[in-house]
Amino acid sequence: MKKNILIIPGDGIGQEVTTWGKQVLETVAQAYGHEFSFDEAIMGHTAIEATGNPLPDETLEKAKASDAILFGAIGHAKYDNDPSAKVRPEQGLLKIRKELGLYANLRPILLFDELLDASSLKPEVLRGTDILFFRELTGDVYFGEKNRNEDNTFASDLMNYHRYEVERITRKAYDAARTRNKRLCSVDKANVLETSRLWREVVQEIAKEYPDVETEHMFIDNAAMQLVKNPKKFDVVLTANLFGDILTDEASQIAGSMGMLASASIGDGTGFFEPIHGSAHDIAGQNKANPLASILSVALMLDIAFGLQDEAKAVTNAVAETLKAGWRTGDIANAETAADKILGTNEMGAKVLS
Amino acid sequence: MKKNILIIPGDGIGQEVTTWGKQVLETVAQAYGHEFSFDEAIMGHTAIEATGNPLPDETLEKAKASDAILFGAIGHAKYDNDPSAKVRPEQGLLKIRKELGLYANLRPILLFDELLDASSLKPEVLRGTDILFFRELTGDVYFGEKNRNEDNTFASDLMNYHRYEVERITRKAYDAARTRNKRLCSVDKANVLETSRLWREVVQEIAKEYPDVETEHMFIDNAAMQLVKNPKKFDVVLTANLFGDILTDEASQIAGSMGMLASASIGDGTGFFEPIHGSAHDIAGQNKANPLASILSVALMLDIAFGLQDEAKAVTNAVAETLKAGWRTGDIANAETAADKILGTNEMGAKVLS
Ligand SMILES: CC(C)[C@H](C(=O)O)[C@@H](O)C(=O)O
Ligand SMILES: CC(C)[C@H](C(=O)O)[C@@H](O)C(=O)O
Repeated sequence: MKKNILIIPGDGIGQEVTTWGKQVLETVAQAYGHEFSFDEAIMGHTAIEATGNPLPDETLEKAKASDAILFGAIGHAKYDNDPSAKVRPEQGLLKIRKELGLYANLRPILLFDELLDASSLKPEVLRGTDILFFRELTGDVYFGEKNRNEDNTFASDLMNYHRYEVERITRKAYDAARTRNKRLCSVDKANVLETSRLWREVVQEIAKEYPDVETEHMFIDNAAMQLVKNPKKFDVVLTANLFGDILTDEASQIAGSMGMLASASIGDGTGFFEPIHGSAHDIAGQNKANPLASILSVALMLDIAFGLQDEAKAVTNAVAETLKAGWRTGDIANAETAADKILGTNEMGAKVLS
Repeated sequence: MKKNILIIPGDGIGQEVTTWGKQVLETVAQAYGHEFSFDEAIMGHTAIEATGNPLPDETLEKAKASDAILFGAIGHAKYDNDPSAKVRPEQGLLKIRKELGLYANLRPILLFDELLDASSLKPEVLRGTDILFFRELTGDVYFGEKNRNEDNTFASDLMNYHRYEVERITRKAYDAARTRNKRLCSVDKANVLETSRLWREVVQEIAKEYPDVETEHMFIDNAAMQLVKNPKKFDVVLTANLFGDILTDEASQIAGSMGMLASASIGDGTGFFEPIHGSAHDIAGQNKANPLASILSVALMLDIAFGLQDEAKAVTNAVAETLKAGWRTGDIANAETAADKILGTNEMGAKVLS
């Protein structure tokens, strides 16, 4: 199989972790006789520094022309502490999601038995958890009109959804539920928000097409609670952009660390694969970042973008075996981990490769 | 001290739990020589059934005339599953918050040592946690303009904040931080939302007036994660209406159960005291609900509305001692709780009273 893969390292630890994602792709290509060619492009703070634009045209063109994109991370504290900054790294990520029509963000909460202890949740609460989040990614309050009045006494963001936006991701989520445990939980705030009431109506309608899947509707506040209380009860979780952002980060604690979670953004064209962790500038360039989420993003790419299930499984297994052998990065180590089992980014990447 | 207290049981388990809140108030009045007089009013589903209006004028008038309000719970599944319902129980709660100017919702996460085991989080993660949430309560996407187009293909809610709305709750939160561990974490999504950028600007400005308090800004996705990962790191958490709704429910798992958490809504006039749990129709009328959140709401009322610190402490201590003696309702029992220590609503209420 011949594929063009675009690597966008982005900001902070993005560079370090995508390096390992790329090496894993190269190893897979060799082992299974594929031809993966690579290109690289800039985005985020890195791109603002170089060009003034968080998503340069050249990056967008390369993205559209590629078969899949491996992304690192985005963001920089400089902008976070300056609420008045007009140009921001995150605009690059939001724009590429919109331009590529990446409306469905899949975030599997994959639990490695070896990491049960790394979580702050009790092992007996965690064991057996297997959740697949479908987060809508190109609508909601993220993309609605923003306003600030002249004298800075008022600001607003429009939260909004079109019916077709809810329909298309709902179908994708139900299709996935069918191949899993046949339970779908749609999360909204329909007791308060009109947007959520439209969301719930659409899900109720489409649910009728999937009588074999058990549907539940849950308010976001309750879902945020149930995820801690009893994560096992969830199978597929379907939700809007903002609620999905919050719930999936919360759920990262189920997997022990954000450093373990990968995501796939899919939609109309080229798929986009990224860890859910951020740019973590505090540890950038120190060989401390956990490369496993980037490597697991590669597994999602192989599976979802290229349909290479065996190759995807091989990558996931390599991660599982590395963990089984006791190797940890700092974020997933616990008090009992022997110091000589704690690895840097590069050593961990190399372990998985071998 | 002479006080008029309005009881609004609301829906579901609201009736059962406020009954015990009221009895605790009566006992306190007797023991400390106060004169508390009580009135009752309807709201929510109960009020819709009786009058067609989730907040009848009579209830609002009584509320305004009272010195403090003890509220139960609101909501009914009937409306949740009918996204097109025009009249909804929750409108009553939102309207009374707005009409009474209850812009600051205080939710203390009070951890009873005896309940460390009832949580899904590990005891070592929990121990020492003591968080006070300040949730803004009369602004945000809760009260912004709602729209639905004619052919039901589009819906929107306006998320918005005025500067003065952010200022007044921020000052209250800083004042509280001063009397506690002098750390304030403001939670927003300033990398995406204009509303959050205004929020952050205002908090940054007011922070200068409180140089003795350490200020941190955190994105909501990160906060949802940190709350599970390391709840101890928080002291005062300040946030907007929607984010506060989500975070405080999530945080209820730190306290072992929603059945343990009380809240105080304060602002321009009469204070409003309520458990954070909902109407829980599935267990309503079965003598199963945990009355402790309602009883702890009474402690908040005594403290915040009436300035009766000793009386408030007596109530909190009575709850702590009941737990220490091993008594539990179903929601806070764990596998090791002896069956004969598990009480119904009324038995638990009576234990606390005695
Ligand atoms: C960086 C930020 C804009 C982004 C989001 O909120 O979508 C991130 O948190 C994510 O979840 O991918
Ligand atoms: C019932 C509902 C409208 C309410 C809210 O979202 O504010 C509740 O969840 C709460 O937290 O008090």
